[in-house]
Amino acid sequence: MERIRESFEAQAFMKTLGAELGHCEEGTVRIRCVVTDELTQQHGYVHAGVLASLADSACGYAALTVMPDGSEVVSVEFKINMLRPCTADVIIAEGTVLKRGRSIVVCEGAVSGESDGRLFAKMTATMFRVAGDEN
Amino acid sequence: MERIRESFEAQAFMKTLGAELGHCEEGTVRIRCVVTDELTQQHGYVHAGVLASLADSACGYAALTVMPDGSEVVSVEFKINMLRPCTADVIIAEGTVLKRGRSIVVCEGAVSGESDGRLFAKMTATMFRVAGDEN
Amino acid sequence: MERIRESFEAQAFMKTLGAELGHCEEGTVRIRCVVTDELTQQHGYVHAGVLASLADSACGYAALTVMPDGSEVVSVEFKINMLRPCTADVIIAEGTVLKRGRSIVVCEGAVSGESDGRLFAKMTATMFRVAGDEN
Amino acid sequence: MERIRESFEAQAFMKTLGAELGHCEEGTVRIRCVVTDELTQQHGYVHAGVLASLADSACGYAALTVMPDGSEVVSVEFKINMLRPCTADVIIAEGTVLKRGRSIVVCEGAVSGESDGRLFAKMTATMFRVAGDEN
Repeated sequence: MERIRESFEAQAFMKTLGAELGHCEEGTVRIRCVVTDELTQQHGYVHAGVLASLADSACGYAALTVMPDGSEVVSVEFKINMLRPCTADVIIAEGTVLKRGRSIVVCEGAVSGESDGRLFAKMTATMFRVAGDEN
Repeated sequence: MERIRESFEAQAFMKTLGAELGHCEEGTVRIRCVVTDELTQQHGYVHAGVLASLADSACGYAALTVMPDGSEVVSVEFKINMLRPCTADVIIAEGTVLKRGRSIVVCEGAVSGESDGRLFAKMTATMFRVAGDEN
Repeated sequence: MERIRESFEAQAFMKTLGAELGHCEEGTVRIRCVVTDELTQQHGYVHAGVLASLADSACGYAALTVMPDGSEVVSVEFKINMLRPCTADVIIAEGTVLKRGRSIVVCEGAVSGESDGRLFAKMTATMFRVAGDEN
Repeated sequence: MERIRESFEAQAFMKTLGAELGHCEEGTVRIRCVVTDELTQQHGYVHAGVLASLADSACGYAALTVMPDGSEVVSVEFKINMLRPCTADVIIAEGTVLKRGRSIVVCEGAVSGESDGRLFAKMTATMFRVAGDEN
């Protein structure tokens, strides 16, 4: 999982959000984010875009765990349903692989509160493998 | 459009992204964002989550322009397709209302480069009206 | 669950597909469909639109099970990922409620083969409650 | 556009719906469907699954028009928003290519009434190219 950590470290936007990589195993990646005022929308809840960003990265890295060495992953699309206002102090975004194809990996993302597991958002995402030497 | 500006100013996350409100009219809202290194993913392109965040806010505010005074808007869901790596220096996210319902407003979002209009991502979003006094 | 059965019987399109209502309980509804040549696309697999239609109905009825008596349900949107070509002889579409709101119910749909449980497609759907007397 | 017509003729499900191929040009395909009682849901409107099926096929064939000869197209995913109850006598589903990639083609689908152009549903779809000899 070293390449996941290296790639995550290179995602400047995850640092901007204050996110850190959590548990990684084949097919599953978690990202943890301590909520600050900088991440909120007009009602004081976490912005839907933050939930989407964390879930997208978790899904992308979950996809990368099942791709051959040297692969790069890009997001083709994702869809996210916001289930309730996000009031958590600490958010966990978990990406899991639903279907592993040669080029396309479909993932699900779940964004929940660390303390109580309350589910705030659910994503499905389509990830695409780019061979490293095609970049 | 004063209430749009007031609400946008209260979205701390838009400030975190360096985004500012652009043109607003009934049914259409634009958000402008100067790209910085803080917004990138591991290959140096703008993170998909940034594109989604800007488009979500543009769609939400576009929806709000067609809602009665005193309404608040929440994102039910959105789906975004990333069309090409985003390399723009300045991004414009435009939200437009596709269908105005009493409770539900469906919007489209387009994220493109300011200088050349190159389209980077396309969103459809479902927004929901909450009466101000129900908050 | 009588109202679910009555409403399903009134869905002429489900008859056109040869679909029948299966297990129903609060928050979960299953629809069963025996595959015929009439449901295929150009490569002989079940058409993605069939999978979507079955999953949409399963999600809609799952949503209806958690709505007050007299409610009607309409589909606001759904998104479906096709995970592999559908070669099953008999399909089961299962809808489950992910989040129950006053007006909006978010559901997940899974389309799989009856004999081996192989997953062919995954949906998330947003359903909206219409009070019966507003129709 | 001959290969589009041949492939469409082989989609048994389009016959089941009573759909016929309309205008085809590079990047755009239309499908026309005369509404019958067999296509309705419980309130007498056209079933959302029918709208999705027509739009999916229109998007898939629009994608195929921009792929090299010998290609086959499969639907990776689609998302559709239903904008209003579909009461049209004749439906037109139009698919248009939004972004043409080597493997992935992103399309938009619009479902409207033939007589008045009223828009009933809007789709975005991700299509994937399979080289004919890989089938």
